[in-house]
Amino acid sequence: MKRIGMLTSGGDCQALNAAMRGVVKTLYNSKEQVEIYGFLNGYKGLIYSKFQMLTGKDFSGILTKGGTILGTSRTPFKTIQDPDENGLNKVEAMKQNYYKLQLDCLVILGGNGTHKTANLLSKEGLNVITLPKTIDNDLWGTDMTFGFQSAVDIATDAIDYIHTTAASHRRVFIVEVMGHKVGWLTLNAGMASGADIILIPEIPYDLDKVIDKIEERDQRGSGFTIIAVAEGAISKKDAKLSKKEYKKKLEKMPHPSVSYELAAAIQEKTGREVRVTVPGHMQRGGSPCPYDRVFASRLGAEAGKLILDNQYGFMVGYKNREMVRVPLEDVAGKLKSISPDASIVKEAKLLGISFGD
Amino acid sequence: MKRIGMLTSGGDCQALNAAMRGVVKTLYNSKEQVEIYGFLNGYKGLIYSKFQMLTGKDFSGILTKGGTILGTSRTPFKTIQDPDENGLNKVEAMKQNYYKLQLDCLVILGGNGTHKTANLLSKEGLNVITLPKTIDNDLWGTDMTFGFQSAVDIATDAIDYIHTTAASHRRVFIVEVMGHKVGWLTLNAGMASGADIILIPEIPYDLDKVIDKIEERDQRGSGFTIIAVAEGAISKKDAKLSKKEYKKKLEKMPHPSVSYELAAAIQEKTGREVRVTVPGHMQRGGSPCPYDRVFASRLGAEAGKLILDNQYGFMVGYKNREMVRVPLEDVAGKLKSISPDASIVKEAKLLGISFGD
Amino acid sequence: MKRIGMLTSGGDCQALNAAMRGVVKTLYNSKEQVEIYGFLNGYKGLIYSKFQMLTGKDFSGILTKGGTILGTSRTPFKTIQDPDENGLNKVEAMKQNYYKLQLDCLVILGGNGTHKTANLLSKEGLNVITLPKTIDNDLWGTDMTFGFQSAVDIATDAIDYIHTTAASHRRVFIVEVMGHKVGWLTLNAGMASGADIILIPEIPYDLDKVIDKIEERDQRGSGFTIIAVAEGAISKKDAKLSKKEYKKKLEKMPHPSVSYELAAAIQEKTGREVRVTVPGHMQRGGSPCPYDRVFASRLGAEAGKLILDNQYGFMVGYKNREMVRVPLEDVAGKLKSISPDASIVKEAKLLGISFGD
Amino acid sequence: MKRIGMLTSGGDCQALNAAMRGVVKTLYNSKEQVEIYGFLNGYKGLIYSKFQMLTGKDFSGILTKGGTILGTSRTPFKTIQDPDENGLNKVEAMKQNYYKLQLDCLVILGGNGTHKTANLLSKEGLNVITLPKTIDNDLWGTDMTFGFQSAVDIATDAIDYIHTTAASHRRVFIVEVMGHKVGWLTLNAGMASGADIILIPEIPYDLDKVIDKIEERDQRGSGFTIIAVAEGAISKKDAKLSKKEYKKKLEKMPHPSVSYELAAAIQEKTGREVRVTVPGHMQRGGSPCPYDRVFASRLGAEAGKLILDNQYGFMVGYKNREMVRVPLEDVAGKLKSISPDASIVKEAKLLGISFGD
Repeated sequence: MKRIGMLTSGGDCQALNAAMRGVVKTLYNSKEQVEIYGFLNGYKGLIYSKFQMLTGKDFSGILTKGGTILGTSRTPFKTIQDPDENGLNKVEAMKQNYYKLQLDCLVILGGNGTHKTANLLSKEGLNVITLPKTIDNDLWGTDMTFGFQSAVDIATDAIDYIHTTAASHRRVFIVEVMGHKVGWLTLNAGMASGADIILIPEIPYDLDKVIDKIEERDQRGSGFTIIAVAEGAISKKDAKLSKKEYKKKLEKMPHPSVSYELAAAIQEKTGREVRVTVPGHMQRGGSPCPYDRVFASRLGAEAGKLILDNQYGFMVGYKNREMVRVPLEDVAGKLKSISPDASIVKEAKLLGISFGD
Repeated sequence: MKRIGMLTSGGDCQALNAAMRGVVKTLYNSKEQVEIYGFLNGYKGLIYSKFQMLTGKDFSGILTKGGTILGTSRTPFKTIQDPDENGLNKVEAMKQNYYKLQLDCLVILGGNGTHKTANLLSKEGLNVITLPKTIDNDLWGTDMTFGFQSAVDIATDAIDYIHTTAASHRRVFIVEVMGHKVGWLTLNAGMASGADIILIPEIPYDLDKVIDKIEERDQRGSGFTIIAVAEGAISKKDAKLSKKEYKKKLEKMPHPSVSYELAAAIQEKTGREVRVTVPGHMQRGGSPCPYDRVFASRLGAEAGKLILDNQYGFMVGYKNREMVRVPLEDVAGKLKSISPDASIVKEAKLLGISFGD
Repeated sequence: MKRIGMLTSGGDCQALNAAMRGVVKTLYNSKEQVEIYGFLNGYKGLIYSKFQMLTGKDFSGILTKGGTILGTSRTPFKTIQDPDENGLNKVEAMKQNYYKLQLDCLVILGGNGTHKTANLLSKEGLNVITLPKTIDNDLWGTDMTFGFQSAVDIATDAIDYIHTTAASHRRVFIVEVMGHKVGWLTLNAGMASGADIILIPEIPYDLDKVIDKIEERDQRGSGFTIIAVAEGAISKKDAKLSKKEYKKKLEKMPHPSVSYELAAAIQEKTGREVRVTVPGHMQRGGSPCPYDRVFASRLGAEAGKLILDNQYGFMVGYKNREMVRVPLEDVAGKLKSISPDASIVKEAKLLGISFGD
Repeated sequence: MKRIGMLTSGGDCQALNAAMRGVVKTLYNSKEQVEIYGFLNGYKGLIYSKFQMLTGKDFSGILTKGGTILGTSRTPFKTIQDPDENGLNKVEAMKQNYYKLQLDCLVILGGNGTHKTANLLSKEGLNVITLPKTIDNDLWGTDMTFGFQSAVDIATDAIDYIHTTAASHRRVFIVEVMGHKVGWLTLNAGMASGADIILIPEIPYDLDKVIDKIEERDQRGSGFTIIAVAEGAISKKDAKLSKKEYKKKLEKMPHPSVSYELAAAIQEKTGREVRVTVPGHMQRGGSPCPYDRVFASRLGAEAGKLILDNQYGFMVGYKNREMVRVPLEDVAGKLKSISPDASIVKEAKLLGISFGD
């Protein structure tokens, strides 16, 4: 008999359900007796012992369903060790609930923040297996995360839509793509949709270079320019500020995000009409794309296998087209970002895409 | 021999190309000799005689292509009779170019503003045929406009995406749908995606009623609420202001649109997390949906037939499932809005949707 | 208190769930107490008293879900009055189960066959409300049926896909679209996807005219031709046969459908490479399109209203953009087919589409 | 100055245009003067010197366009060394045309057959660069081919559509997926869409095992079963036949493909209703998915770089997430198939999917 606790934490994304279904199908298809405890709304469910017993039926038909049947929430790692508003020690509470329910392990699906807490619980002696969930694809130790390709598809659709209207109106269009710290999503969606300029956090941009590209396109008669901008894109000037100074600057901005700031700057310098579109949370939603369904199912199956083998303390990852188990301590607290020298960046430049650098 | 001038004006939308292809195919398939003059970027092309001669090849493969191969721009009717910055009389210029090119007629694709100018040109003695283009579906004299159903599809997708993330995070989500004056797009996309609350310009809302609905859903355990809000949604209080006062109020708002204002109000009154998503210009872009491709092609064919019959001064419309010709003067300056007593509104209410009224 | 029996019958299609949700939401939102008996797998469930009690939860989240949560099956009308293999009188059995459960009415969702039986039950004294379900759009008494637009979307996608491969390989491609008796689906999908030839049951074709069109395209340098063929397309020659003779001929055909027969004939006469693609049952599946979701929800709401008003013996239909109630006896046994003189056919011809006539 | 010949050969697929655009953009963005000779309809264009001079404009807007702007055709390798029907030595003709046009190199996009001929031309002394195009993903030397992921998306959609109708009607449904020799496409689409049984050429199946799975599902109350079958799926019995014997058997089959044969066998043994759907050529068509657009663009950029570096005799491939150059002789004549022991197969089995083995 295995008692499995399961939870999804952090921003939701596509294929969370597919991944959980993969774990559970693998366990049910084994000879083990299995009980699944689904903790509700992320770590909160574990902290306050809010859970549901789940059966096979709960996992039927969810392969293609977006979101998470368990609900999710953000419980920032920097607050995890502080007591809650009632003085409860949250880490202790999670441990107690784990032992009270006599769990054999926790399956935790989440991104960077989630993995810090997962690693902490593992160090505290709980049996933990994690699965790499994030549309940002910025988890260390895995080439790919589920949710990413689905988000690329949606962001690409968004820029495709904008493309026809930008061309018809001869406008500069900025599409803001999710990604505060890394540019994987913006880079891939931008390349897929034929964006002319791609601005990502890893490669600070120079406004003049951005404008050069717009004008070069004008001179060639293209008449419009598409700019894919990551939420965390930053100018070379701002990149020289301290984190604190930059945060202050952001707070003072009259615009809700850097895209609007950039739009205003381009408009001012070129006199051109610039528009901003922000698909926003749409990028996390909807049915997972086929790639993510297969990928998340495979990760889930491997997690199930680890549980059957009593192997804990790992994230299931994907490296060089092989499923791998990565120690949680190697994952926690690291970020997988795009190197400005990466082959994909060079290829994008060969294709004529400007990074404003 | 027929010399046809053609132009697309106002905000672009899906199926403009399909409609033009319909006109041109019909003319080419007739026994007439035909020359097509494509004026660039809306009325500007006609004013400043910027055009391209188009041949069959230009219209091949564009049935499914978004945007407009002619480009478009907004030339507000209220400025059309004023001279331009160089003192040029724009109406006179259009007439002169029309006669200089010895055109037999103008085919003009556009929405409400476009039709006012088209009607003026018709009254000035030019032969004009128009086609009803707008994602807003607010043109008088036709049950349907092309672009509308494609925009419904995109806005519905947007709310579908938001649905899974709203449910997973137990949030109130506002999706702002295009439509400053009418709510057709918001109402249809909202009903198609299962929105719980739909706010449209035609039915001013009461914030308390909106909050009642959110709380009713909470009490039933739904935990999240989707609100589809038209750009021009307005509260009962604001609806009592004069146009001028309301405009002033909007300008002073700290938020870029009424959706953010509404979000702030709900958040303040309920303490709940409220998020806003604005698909924006995406709603005008991309390949037209099959409905619009068929519909725009049919309108184009009927326009071609009118030209072959030398029947001018009409918009081609669609009433009670019949193609009709509507005198331009009947179309210009009128708005087709949703009656609060319309059967579709009543049905939406039967389904449990709140309009906040 | 109202006791409502509900069933879906005939081939499944998109928006069956949306329609049922519409009925049930309307009833639950009224002041009536309501019990919903969902009969399983079409009339069989009513005949053999296989049903499930359904609650609000069963109808939550199904607006966008394809298929039918009740299951369906075909129970041909011509067999409905014969006893089953155990000698059971099926009509009597349905009546007895209706009375035993003390039902106030039956809500029946189905197409042409389904309506014959529904009308019979109504004449036998049961309270019946029906909703017009079919991808064929061939129900008398309504301008539109739900499922139709979703099927158009899928069939159009299919032809769009084929378009690029046909053009690249310079082939004649036949896409067989569903529709044994009527051509609505083929005509709309064909027009939406730019098919060059459209063959439908209502307009028998002449093989030579089909080949003329292919060769005309060759001479113009197009190099490929797309033919959208309804399952029930028929040549002028075959249209002269008696039903019986034609059926015999079909049975002797070496090919699984008329499309393959046509392909072989074109290949033989022109020496060209001809390929056939049959999307088949795909056309009934998947999530309903936004149009169908709104339309089916509206029909459902109107059905709910009829029940609350104790108005029975009607199909809820849609005429000239108004929701209408159509007496069941007016619907049963009639077919809404395309007139060869219909405006849409003429427009298609203006666009250069050949019907082979 | 570089003179580049370019051709696409074999079955068309998505992202051919994206890949060519990648090559050409890279060359145009370099300091080299470039002339592009586009040979029409595959090797035939090179053999018979049918070509078009292409400019930047020809490659604008084709990133998202399906098919190939050059046209394609199959010129089987086993016939390439035979003279044509007029006695022309085809290999000699290609060489002569290459030299006559003073080409610096040939860029050839194709799959397995194409690579055999490309390798031959390379051995004959021509400068050749190839790009791995096939929806089958069966090219040796690269982890991925473009077209594959787009085809997975379409085949998955197809099975998704069938899913709702299969469930509603409680049927066994067979969806035949492209792939005569390898099962990559079937396996991925099957896993993505939750197929219950997946039959691929690499793992011969046992009919009884297939039926066991169907009956196991029945007993669990699922009531329907989805089988994804590759075109080249083969039973264990047939796998023992010689190639010649099996070919003979296939020719004698009353059904057009193994799927129909399998359907008949299941129907006979179980008495259940079994339906077959064949999306067929749809799988090669339409706009490439975002993954393929990025991937093909990157491959194209790398090919451009090789040309600028005068590096010939290679296919550009992708191994372990790195772009690599693979000697043509290593690619030609080999097949990348699925090992029955592959991790993805094992994971699929953990998820409960039967391969009938």
